[in-house]
Amino acid sequence: ERRPLPVEGRLGRQLAFIVEVDRLKTVLRASTLAADARRENDAEHSWHLALMVPVLAEYADEPVDVGHTIKLVVVHDLVEIYAGDTPLYDDEARVSQEERELAAAERLFGLLPDDQAVEFRALWDEFEARRTPEARFAKAVDRLEPNLLNWMAGGGTWGTPGVTGDTVRARTAHIGDASHALGEVMVSLIDSAERNGWIAAGQQGVVGPA
Amino acid sequence: ERRPLPVEGRLGRQLAFIVEVDRLKTVLRASTLAADARRENDAEHSWHLALMVPVLAEYADEPVDVGHTIKLVVVHDLVEIYAGDTPLYDDEARVSQEERELAAAERLFGLLPDDQAVEFRALWDEFEARRTPEARFAKAVDRLEPNLLNWMAGGGTWGTPGVTGDTVRARTAHIGDASHALGEVMVSLIDSAERNGWIAAGQQGVVGPA
Ligand SMILES: [Ca+2]
Repeated sequence: ERRPLPVEGRLGRQLAFIVEVDRLKTVLRASTLAADARRENDAEHSWHLALMVPVLAEYADEPVDVGHTIKLVVVHDLVEIYAGDTPLYDDEARVSQEERELAAAERLFGLLPDDQAVEFRALWDEFEARRTPEARFAKAVDRLEPNLLNWMAGGGTWGTPGVTGDTVRARTAHIGDASHALGEVMVSLIDSAERNGWIAAGQQGVVGPA
Repeated sequence: ERRPLPVEGRLGRQLAFIVEVDRLKTVLRASTLAADARRENDAEHSWHLALMVPVLAEYADEPVDVGHTIKLVVVHDLVEIYAGDTPLYDDEARVSQEERELAAAERLFGLLPDDQAVEFRALWDEFEARRTPEARFAKAVDRLEPNLLNWMAGGGTWGTPGVTGDTVRARTAHIGDASHALGEVMVSLIDSAERNGWIAAGQQGVVGPA
């Protein structure tokens, strides 16, 4: 199906990887754009995070290397090319997520020359494990972005059946672990969205799935 | 038209900027994706460059700071939110490009707090002026990416009326100024594409605009 590039060897493998990852532009997320009435894709989302990191890095509670944090967010969703996006509020899909993504990582990073396969896999592992200040901040920004889009949409994925303000509070709590200030932004968004009727009020007021 | 975020002050300005730049996802380029039959947008393109930089940095002829180079590519097309994309082979649009983009930079980066307005404007200026090894390499990767997409499409924007192999050679020559190896890749792509009939052969064989 693919049109082989007229380049051999190490550089040929690197370019084949670069062409393959074009597919990230076709992985649709649950979120809707702020700027258009269509769903966001993973490449757009990853770019948005890569810009949010240098703009918001001053709010990281532990100092972060900005360049390294940007690398983490640029790479963080690549496995979804084969594993698909797993929406935050799809509990069923989240059960098989880890297994699917581990297999995808083997396959995708394996396209690269061995030394880079190890290097890029390590970036993904670092992000997933939240092992470093950079990974914790990258995860926080990754969680904040779709919630900004939800705010601009006046609901968005906050309207998923069964989701209440308390669900959103629980799934976004780790933002505050990496950045007190961004954690407070997230709380303000949820509180205001509940008042505006864009999120169902916390569980106490809701009949349905906990 | 916009839904103001419930955040004031410095952080409020930063978040307003982050929401505004969502529009980069709606700026369409001339290139078609390798992975789907639709045009690429600037956010997807910028993400692709941000991944190409760490994969290909070893081919920069002058040493580059990878993190800084990624920042340059993440920021490089933001002005197109207001100025629009200027296709490489649209000579008319290219006449007014600089003026439109300067006005757009004032307006967009002016959304940020003053210190960051200066910081992000400087990144864009550095990229545009090709003043540093990082900017030269970023520009090379920026020029290479759509040509990889053209290859995968078996033509793409190479088929713009009046464009020949020599036009493409001239517009991509600066890739080799930043990276001998990537310059050679570009030459191979053009030569092979001419042989495959995906680019009109060099001017000697063509009747029409030079
Ligand atoms: Ca560009």
